[in-house]
Amino acid sequence: MSAPKKVVLAYSGGLDTSIILKWLQTEYGCEVVTFTADLGQGEELEPARQKAELLGIRPENIYIEDVREEFVRDFVFPMFRANAVYEGLYLLGTSIARPLISKRLVEIAEETGADAVAHGATGKGNDQVRFELSAYALNPNIKVIAPWREWDLTSRTKLLDFAEKNQIPIARDKRGEAPFSVDANLLHTSSEGKVLENPADMAPDYVYQRTVNPEEAPDAPEFIEVTFEKGDAVALNGKALTPANLLTSLNEYGRKHGIGRLDFVENRFVGMKSRGIYETPGGTILLEAHRGIEQITLDSGAGHLKDSLMPRYAELIYNGFWFSPEREMLQAAIDKSQEHVSGTVRLKLYKGSVFTVGRWSEASLYSEKHVTFEEDAGAYDQKDAAGFIQLNALRLKLLAARNRRLK
Amino acid sequence: MSAPKKVVLAYSGGLDTSIILKWLQTEYGCEVVTFTADLGQGEELEPARQKAELLGIRPENIYIEDVREEFVRDFVFPMFRANAVYEGLYLLGTSIARPLISKRLVEIAEETGADAVAHGATGKGNDQVRFELSAYALNPNIKVIAPWREWDLTSRTKLLDFAEKNQIPIARDKRGEAPFSVDANLLHTSSEGKVLENPADMAPDYVYQRTVNPEEAPDAPEFIEVTFEKGDAVALNGKALTPANLLTSLNEYGRKHGIGRLDFVENRFVGMKSRGIYETPGGTILLEAHRGIEQITLDSGAGHLKDSLMPRYAELIYNGFWFSPEREMLQAAIDKSQEHVSGTVRLKLYKGSVFTVGRWSEASLYSEKHVTFEEDAGAYDQKDAAGFIQLNALRLKLLAARNRRLK
Amino acid sequence: MSAPKKVVLAYSGGLDTSIILKWLQTEYGCEVVTFTADLGQGEELEPARQKAELLGIRPENIYIEDVREEFVRDFVFPMFRANAVYEGLYLLGTSIARPLISKRLVEIAEETGADAVAHGATGKGNDQVRFELSAYALNPNIKVIAPWREWDLTSRTKLLDFAEKNQIPIARDKRGEAPFSVDANLLHTSSEGKVLENPADMAPDYVYQRTVNPEEAPDAPEFIEVTFEKGDAVALNGKALTPANLLTSLNEYGRKHGIGRLDFVENRFVGMKSRGIYETPGGTILLEAHRGIEQITLDSGAGHLKDSLMPRYAELIYNGFWFSPEREMLQAAIDKSQEHVSGTVRLKLYKGSVFTVGRWSEASLYSEKHVTFEEDAGAYDQKDAAGFIQLNALRLKLLAARNRRLK
Amino acid sequence: MSAPKKVVLAYSGGLDTSIILKWLQTEYGCEVVTFTADLGQGEELEPARQKAELLGIRPENIYIEDVREEFVRDFVFPMFRANAVYEGLYLLGTSIARPLISKRLVEIAEETGADAVAHGATGKGNDQVRFELSAYALNPNIKVIAPWREWDLTSRTKLLDFAEKNQIPIARDKRGEAPFSVDANLLHTSSEGKVLENPADMAPDYVYQRTVNPEEAPDAPEFIEVTFEKGDAVALNGKALTPANLLTSLNEYGRKHGIGRLDFVENRFVGMKSRGIYETPGGTILLEAHRGIEQITLDSGAGHLKDSLMPRYAELIYNGFWFSPEREMLQAAIDKSQEHVSGTVRLKLYKGSVFTVGRWSEASLYSEKHVTFEEDAGAYDQKDAAGFIQLNALRLKLLAARNRRLK
Repeated sequence: MSAPKKVVLAYSGGLDTSIILKWLQTEYGCEVVTFTADLGQGEELEPARQKAELLGIRPENIYIEDVREEFVRDFVFPMFRANAVYEGLYLLGTSIARPLISKRLVEIAEETGADAVAHGATGKGNDQVRFELSAYALNPNIKVIAPWREWDLTSRTKLLDFAEKNQIPIARDKRGEAPFSVDANLLHTSSEGKVLENPADMAPDYVYQRTVNPEEAPDAPEFIEVTFEKGDAVALNGKALTPANLLTSLNEYGRKHGIGRLDFVENRFVGMKSRGIYETPGGTILLEAHRGIEQITLDSGAGHLKDSLMPRYAELIYNGFWFSPEREMLQAAIDKSQEHVSGTVRLKLYKGSVFTVGRWSEASLYSEKHVTFEEDAGAYDQKDAAGFIQLNALRLKLLAARNRRLK
Repeated sequence: MSAPKKVVLAYSGGLDTSIILKWLQTEYGCEVVTFTADLGQGEELEPARQKAELLGIRPENIYIEDVREEFVRDFVFPMFRANAVYEGLYLLGTSIARPLISKRLVEIAEETGADAVAHGATGKGNDQVRFELSAYALNPNIKVIAPWREWDLTSRTKLLDFAEKNQIPIARDKRGEAPFSVDANLLHTSSEGKVLENPADMAPDYVYQRTVNPEEAPDAPEFIEVTFEKGDAVALNGKALTPANLLTSLNEYGRKHGIGRLDFVENRFVGMKSRGIYETPGGTILLEAHRGIEQITLDSGAGHLKDSLMPRYAELIYNGFWFSPEREMLQAAIDKSQEHVSGTVRLKLYKGSVFTVGRWSEASLYSEKHVTFEEDAGAYDQKDAAGFIQLNALRLKLLAARNRRLK
Repeated sequence: MSAPKKVVLAYSGGLDTSIILKWLQTEYGCEVVTFTADLGQGEELEPARQKAELLGIRPENIYIEDVREEFVRDFVFPMFRANAVYEGLYLLGTSIARPLISKRLVEIAEETGADAVAHGATGKGNDQVRFELSAYALNPNIKVIAPWREWDLTSRTKLLDFAEKNQIPIARDKRGEAPFSVDANLLHTSSEGKVLENPADMAPDYVYQRTVNPEEAPDAPEFIEVTFEKGDAVALNGKALTPANLLTSLNEYGRKHGIGRLDFVENRFVGMKSRGIYETPGGTILLEAHRGIEQITLDSGAGHLKDSLMPRYAELIYNGFWFSPEREMLQAAIDKSQEHVSGTVRLKLYKGSVFTVGRWSEASLYSEKHVTFEEDAGAYDQKDAAGFIQLNALRLKLLAARNRRLK
Repeated sequence: MSAPKKVVLAYSGGLDTSIILKWLQTEYGCEVVTFTADLGQGEELEPARQKAELLGIRPENIYIEDVREEFVRDFVFPMFRANAVYEGLYLLGTSIARPLISKRLVEIAEETGADAVAHGATGKGNDQVRFELSAYALNPNIKVIAPWREWDLTSRTKLLDFAEKNQIPIARDKRGEAPFSVDANLLHTSSEGKVLENPADMAPDYVYQRTVNPEEAPDAPEFIEVTFEKGDAVALNGKALTPANLLTSLNEYGRKHGIGRLDFVENRFVGMKSRGIYETPGGTILLEAHRGIEQITLDSGAGHLKDSLMPRYAELIYNGFWFSPEREMLQAAIDKSQEHVSGTVRLKLYKGSVFTVGRWSEASLYSEKHVTFEEDAGAYDQKDAAGFIQLNALRLKLLAARNRRLK
């Protein structure tokens, strides 16, 4: 790979990406464009602008954007249509944010004539894969710089030395090492590393940042109603909300009731197991609600097909293949299933849990007339079941007869 | 189908199966053998013996058996190795008990020279299918009598009339109709029908029988440890227990902490949706624990394959195909994966929830050496990730180049 | 089910459906509308009109339609996009025609105010299921009459008696029983029953009707080129053709070279195995050609997903679930994959076989630059493979280390 | 990776692996052990011994083994139980041989105290992955040397220079470059590269080495019978044969009749498409025969599950994951299905094609009694089909009613 001439850097304004910024300038002598996105991580963005300017980035090369609505509308919601969970439990909060960042990095590169993009993910994790696969899928000629895989700043001391040598301001609390590493966006906060590295040990309470401890949550349950249209949440307690506002409100409910904590050991795409603490307050409520509305609006054929496709869909997102033909194929199938997934779900929130307690819809497939224990006025002829069973049993009888014959 | 001469009836001792018993005698003039099983439903069995005798069953034709250990060991545990949930949420508590009952019905038929078996499931539900597919799979020549599909006792009044005419004792509380219908065994209690038929309405609290309301559960969390060997739970808090005893203990913990409640609308195999309230206290804890131990002992290749097979496996059990070649094929695959799923999981139980908070195992695949944020002494070469990503990206680059070319 | 008042009958003009026509009139005293479709079965349709008139059907109640283009365009081609084969070998020629017939039956019923449709499929086969599931999926209130399951004309003699009693003309060659039963349309001819019932016996040569015996096919191979756009064949040897004309031409090539014969034992949806002889001359060529063009235009991610979905897709069509949400979901995924499946395939036809011998496309993903054994000018860095392998191997190494440790 | 001290090399005796042998000695100064296997590639092995001795390998370090029986029994046959084909058409002849070679390399390394193994596969192909994943899965501490990824002998000229400089004998016909590259074993011969690199061009006839051109095959068909036990072929024309001998005989039949040629463009695991010419004469016959016997002995539930698992199973083998938990899980499922796959298939071989024309078995599930068009004496009650269809249709009716209501 030839040296990059102009690089768009995913820039948080923090110490690490500031070091990367400077390293790109010094290592490659290249022009740097910074991209700082508000994905709902709960940090001010303007300090990132000042920091970038301080590090010599020209104002027209500083991109700061609020992408929360795009994030929820075009990434989070499509994923939730699938009820996607990775390895049975993880709601993919980090995974789903990476393709959006890469998409903007590549777009900005094309707008600014940059030939490369750069990110601050390490060589051990999944995020490097997600950033880079997305970038290459969107622009096959783009270069991707992953400084953590390249440089020799392999210890905290070396990093701080580099920062000092290059006049990068170091916040006092960054002198020491953080006791764990954090990623956050509107969907979730993940924490991993350091104090969390022994999966036998209970995570210390200070690790949790987005949710109250269930034991400190209100002693009374709270009930909310989420309304869906075509598989996407559109209103909360009867009030229409944009995607990001809706998720923000659900996050507030989730935080208050201690909902969405997960202590998890997962399989990274790069081949190792890692332990993370995830907090997905609003997403956990949303998943329960979506399942609740599908229960009455989705046919079993569609539902069972969705269930069987979901693990692969979740794996694709986890592994970084959002922008792949197979994810798009699965999305087409999933979206097709959601045409009538509309209606309202009532949920009970209480001390770490969310339960569906009611659901109703114009598009309901639930037929009380058929299922009732009461007289059904001929809606269903119980004698049909005899034939249904006989023909389902036929092959089993033939098998049993064969197996008896051979004994 | 010619008339049966001798029938083995799945007999609970309750009013409905007593009516069936008598109806079989009167309708077919056939000899009746009763089979009453203790599956952990929490009822005395001896009254069933007295009732059967009262209805004229000869003592040698009365079979009363405690099958709890067999139930958990040979049905529940194999199913939990798969982390089986139906339609995302239901732990299959009713479904998994039916094949065992059918197996014993068929075996007793063969021992007693009966040519038929009979059950008390209605023509609208799944249980008739489960009973009958199992019976036919085990004995292709057996006749199955499903009185609810045959007789004209189509209202409560007619049933009570029949009972009175035939001197069947009617408990006072059975005069009126129950407000909902219940099935129970060691794994779960299900409630459905009547007051539960509108899925928009919250289930009344009196429906729940196996768990305290989370709001009334202890205010302090409780921690327990479940130990697994080859995928099956073998000890609780360090004490070895038989399968049924272990599940019984987990049920106690679950009951106390209000764990395992589910308000659910599901798709029946016979084509309609129905709403049920399920309580699976111990099973819910067991599922979480099993997932927890798999997190460190199961490889991602095995785990992801299991996840993708699970929906079909669960559907087979739900639909009544326990004794089918495809369930056995899936079981072989699943069991193969469990050879090293051994170790201990620590769980927090609190007001309706169960969380894994730690797990450890001799057979752990978690490698702190590889995953650490600290210096890893060469265990993992971050530069390998570059090649890994490049080759995973190659096809995406070729796609992107093709798609750009065609624009 | 209340008696039908007006019935739309799938009417071939043959003896069997003429008897059904008359039986509907006499049994139910209902008005009959006939629908006769040209699906490419190779029979004149006008005699059916005369026959229907003779049996008292009013001219406005006689529907005769050429649906060949719709059949190929909307049913056959979508199915071939999936490379659908049932149980590894069967190209679903009968299965795919049934939903179209049902669709027209239901549409004509709605146009003519009929409350029922009727078909001539027996109670043992798959076609009854396909006809009826399609009809119910399109109109939940329609009645379906399946005379073969209802009447008492259970022997050839009784059928002929009924025909004679009702002045239904009987062609001389229909007096005796056919040595096997045939279904045909533009995609295939199937033969089954009678002389074919022992699957150990080789099918007699006279069973084959659509293809010459390979041994009598030309001694020289012939080469043809099929061109695709978005997954559908659009031209043959460079000449654009409509869907039905293209399939007709392929059928001619296939017939001449003895291509597309299949002697097959399959599993019917109703639970039994049956043996059929299928001839799918053009379809067999089309499947090979489609695979050939996908080889260079479809990415591996998309292709492998398609391959894994195909068996379920084929099963749905075989079982009669064309008009089901899950078939439509799969179709959405499959169609999504075909956006760039365009280009030309060269095929060799010779004595029963069809081989792809070349393929080319503007949309090709094949990169000679990457794959070449020659110097590749840096297109591919072989060192990347080392990292790719190391990370793919990591979990296997951790497994091996664990397993060694436990020994 | 530290330098290897003793290396076991997969050694063919040809020029390329001789150069590798010498390069290992000179590059690493390490001791070399050679392993030369007879996998049925049709070459004498003794010249490899002489060549190795000539290159200074000590006699006790020269391993020459006939592994044909192990190859067919433990690798080919288990794979054929699955009817495995990659991307619809490729019978995996190369893929399935690699794990066996790696297994022996690792075993010999352990026997001889070697710390590394080496292979002659390039950095662009799948074989490097297969060799190395297998080796690491069997010994997590083994080093793998892949000279083609490491050295600077990047052109034919440099290779020949190295050979001359090191006194490696060069056969006269190896001076020039081969027009394509070949891999062969008892299952197949593959050819790729050079003259085959343009997938639009028909492969020249001289590429085919294992089969006669169908046009030159006998003008009369030949019939053979293959007998299976538990899914494996055990006899040919009634004569019991060992696995390797049976496949050898089938290869003879296939060669003679021009069976098993495939011109194919496939997706390599490393991300690019490549074009290969495969000849799998006996394997193609074996696959057809296995499908034939499964048609009558395998139940539809088992068969459909197998069909749906097959693409993933084939992909695992293609990608080099033979020794992985997920392949072993799938194998357990597949093997479970084969317990009654026993019986005989009659096949017609003719000018490039193989057709099943008959099959019979003690374990047949085919029931003429059920399927017959004749009177079936009550084996099957056609009225059962009505109930079967009604309940299968119920959800479709509810869907249709919902969709009409919403219009």
